[in-house]
Amino acid sequence: MALRPSTPEVRLERMTGQDVAEGGFDKAILPIGATEYHGPHLPYGTDTIGAEALAEGIARELGQTIVLPTLDYGVSFHHIEFPWTVSLRPETLTMMVRDIIESVMAHGIRKIAILTAHDGNPPPAESAARSLYQDHGIEIAMIGGWQGAARKALAGTWDIDLDHAGQSEMSLVLYGAPEMARIDLAVNQPNQGMGHPVSIVGSFKGTVPKGYSGKAADGSEEEGEAIVKAIAALVVPFLRDLDAHDWKRGSWLSGIDS
Amino acid sequence: MALRPSTPEVRLERMTGQDVAEGGFDKAILPIGATEYHGPHLPYGTDTIGAEALAEGIARELGQTIVLPTLDYGVSFHHIEFPWTVSLRPETLTMMVRDIIESVMAHGIRKIAILTAHDGNPPPAESAARSLYQDHGIEIAMIGGWQGAARKALAGTWDIDLDHAGQSEMSLVLYGAPEMARIDLAVNQPNQGMGHPVSIVGSFKGTVPKGYSGKAADGSEEEGEAIVKAIAALVVPFLRDLDAHDWKRGSWLSGIDS
Amino acid sequence: MALRPSTPEVRLERMTGQDVAEGGFDKAILPIGATEYHGPHLPYGTDTIGAEALAEGIARELGQTIVLPTLDYGVSFHHIEFPWTVSLRPETLTMMVRDIIESVMAHGIRKIAILTAHDGNPPPAESAARSLYQDHGIEIAMIGGWQGAARKALAGTWDIDLDHAGQSEMSLVLYGAPEMARIDLAVNQPNQGMGHPVSIVGSFKGTVPKGYSGKAADGSEEEGEAIVKAIAALVVPFLRDLDAHDWKRGSWLSGIDS
Amino acid sequence: MALRPSTPEVRLERMTGQDVAEGGFDKAILPIGATEYHGPHLPYGTDTIGAEALAEGIARELGQTIVLPTLDYGVSFHHIEFPWTVSLRPETLTMMVRDIIESVMAHGIRKIAILTAHDGNPPPAESAARSLYQDHGIEIAMIGGWQGAARKALAGTWDIDLDHAGQSEMSLVLYGAPEMARIDLAVNQPNQGMGHPVSIVGSFKGTVPKGYSGKAADGSEEEGEAIVKAIAALVVPFLRDLDAHDWKRGSWLSGIDS
Amino acid sequence: MALRPSTPEVRLERMTGQDVAEGGFDKAILPIGATEYHGPHLPYGTDTIGAEALAEGIARELGQTIVLPTLDYGVSFHHIEFPWTVSLRPETLTMMVRDIIESVMAHGIRKIAILTAHDGNPPPAESAARSLYQDHGIEIAMIGGWQGAARKALAGTWDIDLDHAGQSEMSLVLYGAPEMARIDLAVNQPNQGMGHPVSIVGSFKGTVPKGYSGKAADGSEEEGEAIVKAIAALVVPFLRDLDAHDWKRGSWLSGIDS
Amino acid sequence: MALRPSTPEVRLERMTGQDVAEGGFDKAILPIGATEYHGPHLPYGTDTIGAEALAEGIARELGQTIVLPTLDYGVSFHHIEFPWTVSLRPETLTMMVRDIIESVMAHGIRKIAILTAHDGNPPPAESAARSLYQDHGIEIAMIGGWQGAARKALAGTWDIDLDHAGQSEMSLVLYGAPEMARIDLAVNQPNQGMGHPVSIVGSFKGTVPKGYSGKAADGSEEEGEAIVKAIAALVVPFLRDLDAHDWKRGSWLSGIDS
Repeated sequence: MALRPSTPEVRLERMTGQDVAEGGFDKAILPIGATEYHGPHLPYGTDTIGAEALAEGIARELGQTIVLPTLDYGVSFHHIEFPWTVSLRPETLTMMVRDIIESVMAHGIRKIAILTAHDGNPPPAESAARSLYQDHGIEIAMIGGWQGAARKALAGTWDIDLDHAGQSEMSLVLYGAPEMARIDLAVNQPNQGMGHPVSIVGSFKGTVPKGYSGKAADGSEEEGEAIVKAIAALVVPFLRDLDAHDWKRGSWLSGIDS
Repeated sequence: MALRPSTPEVRLERMTGQDVAEGGFDKAILPIGATEYHGPHLPYGTDTIGAEALAEGIARELGQTIVLPTLDYGVSFHHIEFPWTVSLRPETLTMMVRDIIESVMAHGIRKIAILTAHDGNPPPAESAARSLYQDHGIEIAMIGGWQGAARKALAGTWDIDLDHAGQSEMSLVLYGAPEMARIDLAVNQPNQGMGHPVSIVGSFKGTVPKGYSGKAADGSEEEGEAIVKAIAALVVPFLRDLDAHDWKRGSWLSGIDS
Repeated sequence: MALRPSTPEVRLERMTGQDVAEGGFDKAILPIGATEYHGPHLPYGTDTIGAEALAEGIARELGQTIVLPTLDYGVSFHHIEFPWTVSLRPETLTMMVRDIIESVMAHGIRKIAILTAHDGNPPPAESAARSLYQDHGIEIAMIGGWQGAARKALAGTWDIDLDHAGQSEMSLVLYGAPEMARIDLAVNQPNQGMGHPVSIVGSFKGTVPKGYSGKAADGSEEEGEAIVKAIAALVVPFLRDLDAHDWKRGSWLSGIDS
Repeated sequence: MALRPSTPEVRLERMTGQDVAEGGFDKAILPIGATEYHGPHLPYGTDTIGAEALAEGIARELGQTIVLPTLDYGVSFHHIEFPWTVSLRPETLTMMVRDIIESVMAHGIRKIAILTAHDGNPPPAESAARSLYQDHGIEIAMIGGWQGAARKALAGTWDIDLDHAGQSEMSLVLYGAPEMARIDLAVNQPNQGMGHPVSIVGSFKGTVPKGYSGKAADGSEEEGEAIVKAIAALVVPFLRDLDAHDWKRGSWLSGIDS
Repeated sequence: MALRPSTPEVRLERMTGQDVAEGGFDKAILPIGATEYHGPHLPYGTDTIGAEALAEGIARELGQTIVLPTLDYGVSFHHIEFPWTVSLRPETLTMMVRDIIESVMAHGIRKIAILTAHDGNPPPAESAARSLYQDHGIEIAMIGGWQGAARKALAGTWDIDLDHAGQSEMSLVLYGAPEMARIDLAVNQPNQGMGHPVSIVGSFKGTVPKGYSGKAADGSEEEGEAIVKAIAALVVPFLRDLDAHDWKRGSWLSGIDS
Repeated sequence: MALRPSTPEVRLERMTGQDVAEGGFDKAILPIGATEYHGPHLPYGTDTIGAEALAEGIARELGQTIVLPTLDYGVSFHHIEFPWTVSLRPETLTMMVRDIIESVMAHGIRKIAILTAHDGNPPPAESAARSLYQDHGIEIAMIGGWQGAARKALAGTWDIDLDHAGQSEMSLVLYGAPEMARIDLAVNQPNQGMGHPVSIVGSFKGTVPKGYSGKAADGSEEEGEAIVKAIAALVVPFLRDLDAHDWKRGSWLSGIDS
């Protein structure tokens, strides 16, 4: 769901063969979004917009990195009670990721990251990555949990929430696709309590009856930009190290000499 | 890969819960594209742009019809020899389509069409539709082959080609996402010969060594608009009839009384 | 469902190891039929008989070509409302075709055609062919749509219908397995209207309440023979060209120089 | 691979809708064969011919029983080293059986037997039966091992072997499809030793280098007929009991009162 | 479910890397059990205990043989009507076996046996073995049916039953895990009748309403030990032969010269 | 891999039908372990022992809770370079979990937790839980990450490491299965560095060349007991709340009123 032209362009679906040939790309990021109810005030593509904005931010900073078309669909069955939410089964997402990455590998690319921006997607994406490692020896970087990471990184500057369709998601949409954010319709809700010792797989409606939580009305494009920059600042140096080690886990990661 | 704002909006990923609630939608179209080399002059998302433009044209004319997020990936392994082409396996696309439509059905929607704009996609999409019919009794409308249909419908007015990355695809991109068309880089090629009594599943590069054919340099936004209107004019009255028959095959189709 | 002895024998299931060793076969055709209600007047194996007769006609003309045992079962769920119709799921047929062709390839055979004679079978068969191409680089010839092809080829001589259990199917059974045709029970029905811009996957009973259409009572062995000869005349020269190009798609197909 | 007309006809693929309607069938047998090298003297369809002949023998004796089209393909990879042997993967055969039986159940038939005539087929057929029981509560009768059963039943009258492409298989082909048996080419081989405490899944060629064993030259149509009659005599009374108990396992089987 | 320390240790899960390195193992046995109601008097792990005890007996006698962790779950849906019975689908067990054996092969081990101790498990285990042979050429030894084999081997000494939760299973638990056998709760039942010409896949409760049969109260540790020794005495010499032939089927098995 | 008798018994495989009937169980925990190299000093079943000890600790404290047989195999391909490590594919583990839980549900049990004790297992276990929720509406509690949870809970008392085959795992084995811990062979290693912003799916050997890290020689049974008690103290009150809410996510979790 590529939205805005960007300079330089990094999104594969917007480039021609000429563009790609000139780009000298040797790395790829696959963003995974969702199609999911996000209240009256945020679009169904909110997670897709977020995944794409974050992936673009990282790719542009990292360099020589193509952003593959963002998957618009994720594992969202826990939101199915809300209208028009669409969900893949976990195994379908696993197969999607496998096929896409095997295609990219067919072009000699082996430096690949997956970026997830929705809580149902990391398990099937990781299952795909594990199968790909087993079958091809490829080691894939998994980038996820942007809300928690940004919350920690920006503590003291911005108070990033962990809500669904709340302030931080509003900010990211205002940054990435402002024409789709209906901040005029946002009515602030309580923030979700978090951090239970046991997670329960089940209905989001059970815990958040309206289907959205947090202070969406307080989101801002500035916060969105801060989030994208913070995540890029966190991730890119790590990926540069990884790149320097031929994109393979090594003893530099554990601090244990080989 | 929703590109341009449109009025009224029909694309799910760009709408909020409020938009959807106000829209009174009872029908859905799922467009399926591809991520595939289209020469130096057309973007990798060409088939996605085409599928989306056609689906929007139909949805807006038909009314009360939502356009689901276009699948950016299709079955394109016959183009894998060209750089950065990405392909799903047929069974993966089948599962994607199944999951998406079962989700939409969970919201009480049973009037559903699938629109394919790339030659590798109809078989796995039809396999999904057949399984869905078997499991749920739902009857799905399959819209495909826009080049042949437009060629026939516009004969005498426009000479629509059947090429890959040729004139008609250039026109559709000029209409749907003009900023991505590099018509300046288009160099006309011979048109493909067509119409063999046997089709062969295999390398597109074998038959079209450069990976693109036809007169892309002669494409135009006007032709693109004509194509979209012609397909809508062809398909929408049929879908209205179908709608009037509760979206079920009936004797009106065969002309045989029950 | 091999029915009649034939000279020379081309059906694998009827040959011994000695026969096969002497035959010098380097090509294979896999016919796919169905087990499906065809009115009171035609047998459940009608599509199997047709597929087998056409495959034999082609194989004998082409030479050095073995006919593999015809699959008696196809994707026929759209006829399940009629008694004793049996249907595979599309994915099952896909797997069948894959396994069979991988076995044939294990014997060094790479010149392979699939012949379908029932409208539910081409999509899963093509999905199999695409997977086989992806995994093994093999390019498979797909032969289908005999009614439309024969209608065009025989125009002016015979008026070939497109019906289910109608005149052309009666003719093919009268030619291939006359003892199973109950032409005495055939009562002519209206011909089906055809050629809609959108196809709908769903109940055949919806459009053809009796489960059969067309002028079965007017079928004849002569028409059946004409159909088999016309299809062979259309397909065999093409397959000879293909054979001369090592059974691979090439620029001779598109008319574009490499 | 229905071969010979028979009276009364019990094979579905040879019957029309009228025939079936008049037959009053409430039971079905699914025979499973194979496409496999059987020496220079027996056809590739030997196991298919055998399965079909046995199923017909049982069906005709049992009454009101339809014989579904015999599966021509089985799990034969242990013979793949011999030319033109074709094998399904076990999971493919499992799916085939599932789909076919679910179709038959759609017509209200719940009295179903599976007859296997090749040693690779019982495990995947039983896996299908177990899944069908789990999903639908249907209890399926499994008929297999005709060589061992006939050997015991006919002891003192005929000495039935347990060989591959040996005397008993020659006899069954001479009975069921005599025009395909090349007894003139049969050269007697040693009988296989049998009865090891551990079975090994692997190459048949390893143990039987020529790919066939036993005294095929001594086969006869009379022996074939005796085998078919012996199996029917063994199986039919049991199936009658089963039929009397609504085709369900019951305490009559264990001799333990409920 | 490793129960008792043993000397020398052969169970992988109880050994450390040091133990394994010192053991010089070049063969592996995978035992497969079940979790299934076995009356008031025998534990749910009865089949697991039996499989493990038999595998240990064989491994210790054979030498250089590791016992992989016993699968606690098998295909037991025919017992699901009895409380807390747990069943895998056949295809799940097939995949388990495949994955485990492919892992063991990754360590260079190709001498592998599978031991089943429950009647639902041999078909899916054999399906796995056939796929592994097809994909890797590995030939796997299948050990099953201990009750029948022990009955024959010990005839005249012990009268081994074929019952579920009866005397022989009680004996095996008394031998392998005595603290779990509640012989005080065992009430003798009739023995099951056996040996029908047709087997029926379906409810065990149908034939054995209480869910257990036979003279469990008469079981003894001595009988259990006799069973384990008898099976080892039967199987180990065969496996030694197999080992001497590089664990491959060969003409020594059929008695036919190559 | 049930190891020690315990009072009261909670492990299904060790109980008879009588034990279970008397237990009044309405909840179940499924522990998932692994079979994986853990250095010269810890057994291959280390993760299985840990999962089982933690599950037992929780079950006994929670009451009316059965511990299902621990899965001995997990997703361990990242350790495959170390001898005799065995790994399932992620999709196999997903299917195992699905089948087991569907069986338990067949007995009317809907209060179910999954406990994972190895880093490869949570994604496929969660995929299973999501599918089960989609298909049956069941909400499953996921317990994982015992090292991190214990580290936080015991901070100030015990310094719990996050290592593989290090101090905390040694402690858990000393507590759960002391006869298998070879603390005499433990040689302390550096602790792993942790907490990178991006995780990489790939070879454990890459980051930890010896295959184990941390101060295993400093483990103790006391630490093991402290860990088990800490996890139970953390989890059990939460599960009691969940139990009080009919084992369903509710607004008590988010702190947002419905």
